Amino acid sequence: MKLNQRGNTVNLSIIGLGARGYSQLQLLLTMKDVEIVSVCDRYQDRVEKAQQAVLESRGKKPQGTLVASEAICHKDADAVIIMTSWETHIPLAIEALNNGKRVALEVGGSSSLEECWQLVHESEKTRIPVMLLENCCYGETEMALLNMVRQNVFGTLVHCAGSYGHDLRDEIGLGDINRHYRQNHFLHRNGELYPTHELGPIANYLHINRGNRMLALTSMASKACGIHAWFQTNHKQSPLANTNFSEGDIVTTMIQCAQGETILLTHDCTLPRFYSRSGVIRGTKGMWMEDGHAMYLDGITPVTDWMHRPEEDRPYLEKYRHPLWQEYYAFGVRGGHDGMDYLVLRAFLESVQEQKEPPIDVYDAASWMCITALSEQSIAMGSAPVPIPDFTNGGWCLQQEQSHRQEFEL
Amino acid sequence: MKLNQRGNTVNLSIIGLGARGYSQLQLLLTMKDVEIVSVCDRYQDRVEKAQQAVLESRGKKPQGTLVASEAICHKDADAVIIMTSWETHIPLAIEALNNGKRVALEVGGSSSLEECWQLVHESEKTRIPVMLLENCCYGETEMALLNMVRQNVFGTLVHCAGSYGHDLRDEIGLGDINRHYRQNHFLHRNGELYPTHELGPIANYLHINRGNRMLALTSMASKACGIHAWFQTNHKQSPLANTNFSEGDIVTTMIQCAQGETILLTHDCTLPRFYSRSGVIRGTKGMWMEDGHAMYLDGITPVTDWMHRPEEDRPYLEKYRHPLWQEYYAFGVRGGHDGMDYLVLRAFLESVQEQKEPPIDVYDAASWMCITALSEQSIAMGSAPVPIPDFTNGGWCLQQEQSHRQEFEL
Repeated sequence: MKLNQRGNTVNLSIIGLGARGYSQLQLLLTMKDVEIVSVCDRYQDRVEKAQQAVLESRGKKPQGTLVASEAICHKDADAVIIMTSWETHIPLAIEALNNGKRVALEVGGSSSLEECWQLVHESEKTRIPVMLLENCCYGETEMALLNMVRQNVFGTLVHCAGSYGHDLRDEIGLGDINRHYRQNHFLHRNGELYPTHELGPIANYLHINRGNRMLALTSMASKACGIHAWFQTNHKQSPLANTNFSEGDIVTTMIQCAQGETILLTHDCTLPRFYSRSGVIRGTKGMWMEDGHAMYLDGITPVTDWMHRPEEDRPYLEKYRHPLWQEYYAFGVRGGHDGMDYLVLRAFLESVQEQKEPPIDVYDAASWMCITALSEQSIAMGSAPVPIPDFTNGGWCLQQEQSHRQEFEL
Repeated sequence: MKLNQRGNTVNLSIIGLGARGYSQLQLLLTMKDVEIVSVCDRYQDRVEKAQQAVLESRGKKPQGTLVASEAICHKDADAVIIMTSWETHIPLAIEALNNGKRVALEVGGSSSLEECWQLVHESEKTRIPVMLLENCCYGETEMALLNMVRQNVFGTLVHCAGSYGHDLRDEIGLGDINRHYRQNHFLHRNGELYPTHELGPIANYLHINRGNRMLALTSMASKACGIHAWFQTNHKQSPLANTNFSEGDIVTTMIQCAQGETILLTHDCTLPRFYSRSGVIRGTKGMWMEDGHAMYLDGITPVTDWMHRPEEDRPYLEKYRHPLWQEYYAFGVRGGHDGMDYLVLRAFLESVQEQKEPPIDVYDAASWMCITALSEQSIAMGSAPVPIPDFTNGGWCLQQEQSHRQEFEL
C-alpha cells in the first residue's frame, strides 16, 4: 500500500455528512489525488456546510443533494463513500453497485442476515468490489499485534476477545434529538449492535475467510437499565426518562471458528466505564491483553513468582511495529483516530486507482456485519446457537492470491 | 463471625492430605479449639506425615486410615472436612451426612447434575448442613467489593465476570504421575471444570439463592492444543506427548440470572498466562476490573478526556475494607492465600460450635458446583442453552433470616 497521493485522481460522491462523514470529508480534502463531485445528506445544512468545505479547498462547489441516488449516479463519480446511519449502509452500497460504482461503507452492524447476502450477491453479479472502512484494522496497535501473530510470537492462536466498551449514554439518551440514528437501535433492538471495531482485527489475526471461517455464535444480553438509571439521575424531565430501552447493557457473544478458535465479543455502551476495546489474543506461546496493557510470552517474560506477572505491552508493540506503520511514521502520521482513518481511506482509494480488490472485501463486510443480526436471533431464542453463513460459498478454504492484502497477510 | 478460637472444641476428621489438605491441616493445628481425631488419605505416607504433624502439635496421635468411611464414622468426630480429589467431594460429603456428621468440602466442580441434587436431598433429609469451603468468598478484595456492592457504590448490578486464569500446564501435563487427579479431568472432560473461585464471590454480590438465582447457561470451548504444544517444546519424550486432551484451552460460560444480570466465567489453565481471576463488576453507577486494577465510578472518578480513564482500585478497596477484614487486621491476618483460608475455616468451625447454618450452604454448593456438569452438557450440544436447576425449590424468592450470613449480607 502506497502512502503518498500520486495516483490517478479519484472522483468521489460522499453520502452521509454527520460528525463522522464530515470529518472524513475534511481528511479526503487534504489528499491531492481526490476530488469531491457530490455531497449528500438528508439535512440541507449539512450539505451546504460540506459544499462550502469543498469550495474552500478546491475552488469549485460540488453537487449538493438530499437524494442519495443523485449522488450515487453522478456521472463523474468513480466511487461512492457511504457514511450514513447504520441501517442505510448496505442498501445504499447495493444501489451503488447496481449503478456500476465502486463503493466503500463506514462500519456498523447489519439489520438482517438477508441484506448481507444481498450485498454479496450484488457485488458478485456486477463484479464490482465493496470495501468496509474498518479503521481499527489499520490501528497501530492492531497492526503491530497482527505482525506478532504472523511472526508466530503467540504460537498457534486459540482464543481472541474484544469489546466495544464506550459509554455512550449521553449520545444515546439525548443526542441530537432530530438527527441521531443510534438511539433507535438501542430503543428497539437487543444484540451485538457494533461488532466490527474489535472483530475486524481479530478476523485478520485468525485468517477469517482465508483458510478459516466463523461457524456459529451464541449471544446473551443483560437487562437494560443503564440509560434509565442515567435519566433518573441526570435528566428526569426528558420525554424518554421512563421509556424502556431494549438493548441489554452488556451483550456477550461467543463465536466458534472452523479451525477451533473461539472469539468473545462484548457490546458495552450504556453503563459507566472507561473506553476500551478490551482486546485479548491467546496462543500456545503467549498472550496480549489490552486492559492492563499486558504482554506475557512463554520463555521470554521473566518469571519471578508463581503468579507469572505480565510485562508492559508497549516495548513489544514498538519492537514489532508493522512495516506499513514504520513507513507511515517516516511519511508523517495524520488524520483522525491516531492515524488509522488516513490508512483505511488510502487503502480504498488505491483499490479504485489500481482497479483491484480492496483489502477488506465484500465477504469480510458481510461476515463481520452479519454478527449483529445473528446475535439478535440468538438472544431472541434464549441464547440458542445460530449458524454463521459462509458468504464465500466455500472460497474460504481455497488457496488464493492475496497480493491485494499485503498489509494483512504479511 | 468471631475470629478468636474460644469456642467449644471441635473434633475433626480430615480426609484428603495432598498439598491442599496438608496445608489446611497445618492451619487447623494452630487453632486452640480444634482437635484432629482422624486423618485419611489413599496414600499411606501422607497419612503418616499428617499423624506425625498432629502428634507434634497435640502430643497425641490421631487415627490414621486409608478408608474414608473409617474417618467419617470416627466416634469422636464432630465434623468432617473433605479435601480429596474433585470427583470424590460430593460422594464423601453425602456419606458424612448419612452418618450424622456435619461436613465441609473443598472447592471443585461436579461430576454430574445428579450428584448435586443428591447432596441437597441428603442434607434436607438428615437436616444436617453442608459448607463449601470457597475461600475466595473471604478474600480481602472480594469482601471489600461486596461491601461496596451492599453500599450501592456500583448502583444496580448488571453484569459480573470472573476467570480461573492459572497456567497449570506443568501440573496437568506432568504432575505427580501416580497421584494427581486434575490430569484425568483435562484428559477426558470439556467444560468449566473449576468455577467456584470466581462464581462464589459473584453469587454473593448478586444475592444468588437469596432473592435471585441462576436460570440458564451456555458454554463454548476452544480447541485443546495448549498442553500438546507445551509437551512438544518441553517434554517431547513424555508418554502423554501425543495424547489428545479433551478440555478446551479456553472455556467460556455465559449465565443468565433471574433479576436480569449476566455472569461470564472463563476457565483458562492450559495456555501461557499470568495468574488472574479477572473479576469484573458492572453496575449503573460504576465498575471494577481486576485486570489493570481499574475502578471507575460515575461522578466520582475525574473525567479528563473522552476516554474516561479509570482510577487505581487500591484506595477504594482500602476505604471500603469489609468490617470483618478491619477486625481481622487488628486480630492479625494469618494462614494461606493471604488470610482467606483462616476465615473460611473459622466460618465452618463456628457453624459447628454454634450448631447453626454455615454461611456458604448446601444450596450454594450445589448451584455453584453444578455449573461444571451443565457447561459440559452445553458444549456437548454445540453451545445450546441449558437450564440451571433451582436447588432451593422456590426458597430463593422467599424473605429469609440471614443472620448466619452476616458477613455477606451486611
